[in-house]
Amino acid sequence: MSLPTHMQAVLLTGHGGPEKLDCRSDVVVPEPGAGEVLIEVSACGMNNTDIWVREGAYGTDDDPNATASWRRAGDNTLTFPRIQGADTAGVIVDVGEGVAKARIGTRVMVDFSIYNGDGCSLIDIDYIGHGRDGGFAEYVTVPAEQAHVCTSPMSDAELATFCCAYLTGEHMLDRAALKAGETVLITGASGGVGSALVQLARARGAIPYAICGQDKSDLVKSLGAEAVIGREEEDLAGAVTDAMNGRALDVAADLVAGPLFGPLINLLRPEGRYTTAGAIGGPVVELDLRTIYLKHLTLHGSSQGTRAAFERLHGYIESGAIKPLLWQTYPLSEITAAQAAFKAKGYVGKLVLQPDAKWQPVTPWTERQL
Amino acid sequence: MSLPTHMQAVLLTGHGGPEKLDCRSDVVVPEPGAGEVLIEVSACGMNNTDIWVREGAYGTDDDPNATASWRRAGDNTLTFPRIQGADTAGVIVDVGEGVAKARIGTRVMVDFSIYNGDGCSLIDIDYIGHGRDGGFAEYVTVPAEQAHVCTSPMSDAELATFCCAYLTGEHMLDRAALKAGETVLITGASGGVGSALVQLARARGAIPYAICGQDKSDLVKSLGAEAVIGREEEDLAGAVTDAMNGRALDVAADLVAGPLFGPLINLLRPEGRYTTAGAIGGPVVELDLRTIYLKHLTLHGSSQGTRAAFERLHGYIESGAIKPLLWQTYPLSEITAAQAAFKAKGYVGKLVLQPDAKWQPVTPWTERQL
Repeated sequence: MSLPTHMQAVLLTGHGGPEKLDCRSDVVVPEPGAGEVLIEVSACGMNNTDIWVREGAYGTDDDPNATASWRRAGDNTLTFPRIQGADTAGVIVDVGEGVAKARIGTRVMVDFSIYNGDGCSLIDIDYIGHGRDGGFAEYVTVPAEQAHVCTSPMSDAELATFCCAYLTGEHMLDRAALKAGETVLITGASGGVGSALVQLARARGAIPYAICGQDKSDLVKSLGAEAVIGREEEDLAGAVTDAMNGRALDVAADLVAGPLFGPLINLLRPEGRYTTAGAIGGPVVELDLRTIYLKHLTLHGSSQGTRAAFERLHGYIESGAIKPLLWQTYPLSEITAAQAAFKAKGYVGKLVLQPDAKWQPVTPWTERQL
Repeated sequence: MSLPTHMQAVLLTGHGGPEKLDCRSDVVVPEPGAGEVLIEVSACGMNNTDIWVREGAYGTDDDPNATASWRRAGDNTLTFPRIQGADTAGVIVDVGEGVAKARIGTRVMVDFSIYNGDGCSLIDIDYIGHGRDGGFAEYVTVPAEQAHVCTSPMSDAELATFCCAYLTGEHMLDRAALKAGETVLITGASGGVGSALVQLARARGAIPYAICGQDKSDLVKSLGAEAVIGREEEDLAGAVTDAMNGRALDVAADLVAGPLFGPLINLLRPEGRYTTAGAIGGPVVELDLRTIYLKHLTLHGSSQGTRAAFERLHGYIESGAIKPLLWQTYPLSEITAAQAAFKAKGYVGKLVLQPDAKWQPVTPWTERQL
């Protein structure tokens, strides 16, 4: 089997708008280094972080409006041009020094984390598609131990719906120590991480309540939400309290924040926990510390997840405990249209890119038997 | 031994200013109920919560400016008239049904918590001096298991410096899981809880850095602070970084908040922890959730502490591991002057009230051999 020397890939050429995405066909195919594998990519999921990194929308410690990438700690690892793409699925087609040749030919999903540590601490974490080239390409190299064999009957595009969103979600729930039988209120529940959280909360035996746009409430309910509250509700806190029917709120898993943040904090029971990994509705919020100390609350922030969380996630996928919410696929060359659809949020679940040569349109998961 | 029928006590007659404190000599001496002991009070420490409860300065979930007492959860347990006073030391002079007569005559300090539970969870916690009458009186009844025998050579007034501030501080450090060898930055370090934190951090082998007014920095350093940073520093974060000499900040233990909150959060290392039990510089703060999730931070709020923390504190007192920072005593009848001195903050450590008949003026701890 001989590999091509050049490939299709989307290069991010700097911070800015969609014009900073350059889809080309003359990018050199990378070679796997020692301890690495080369993957022929068949699908790569899209995430908010692709867009926020492009925009430089993460701010800095001192300036919420600064143009900055995703890492606040450690060195800046984002250099241009960069191939983004976190949620890669494909087949191993070559291996570097020290990696068994027998791995060639296996189908894998990539754990996108660059742990820079033991995989328990995330102090210096980075990710494939940010600190090194990712899967918006026909080929990508990754550390061999990050390529996990998948025997699930899911398609590659379906496998590409999980990694970033579900690892992020699973670790959010780990941080809040959400236990079986506890309640969790999930905001942004129709989004990538939000819909992941609904499924992952159920997978650990907890009881998820969801907030999302009213038009998506039936779909989110079908994922396992005990009840769905429309974010348009005028008295959102009252609507949540009604929906919970006297149950106390143990955990708030928040991806929206902004005007939702205050009501979420107030809805928590004493000794309740708030956990966040994103704030699409506005990250700068007002906090009354008296509420935090008088109610013994804990607030957890996190990004990505641990190796243990990935192993659990991989197990859920292999066992079919969670379903792939593949809404639509796009060819790499249409990444701008794909990101526009992503930002328009007119769907529930995940959008996935595929190299043009491998692109296969699908019907949304809602029209298929999962 | 016959007990009097009436006693001196300070009655809190409602929310408001010092005029709501009524020091009388005709208050009926309480009788110990089943499972209770009656204590002849010799000293009772003063705390911020005495004043904030009087003022109703805790706000509500929905209205930061509402006049409200200390409990956000559970029923309102503050009724008027109420005898405040959390940090009681004295001698057991009578016992109720089911309590061994042999306890009469023992010197005790009172664990001021009303746990309403197992003492691990603080979900429904309340305190003596708020949910029932406390020690600003000549006599007080408390549950027998809350009266802990003290054999330390400290005076009763010295024993009365610890409970509220040190239990609050110890639990703050428990919440943040501060470990031996870790660094902790303590704000308001010349105050009651702040000076407690400096000592308690050292007692567990951690390395405390302190922020306080420049005029008190020598005293706070003498308590065990590795370095003290004046809160007047124009570039406070820079001064802390300089003082820490390249060490990372593991934990921020904050009692001030207000304009200090943002810099504190930014000073924390990735996976650092913030812990608070008060916010004398302003409780309503601005928070950039991106900083929380990109740096994997955790924020803990708490008030009071667990039974386990109290046991540890009691052990520190008995072993002499922590010192009583008794600054001054006042007779009960001068509570208004005492609270004015308390609010003026012209000292380091604790002020203690004593029944007029037992009042003994002291020289500040800084002028005595501890």
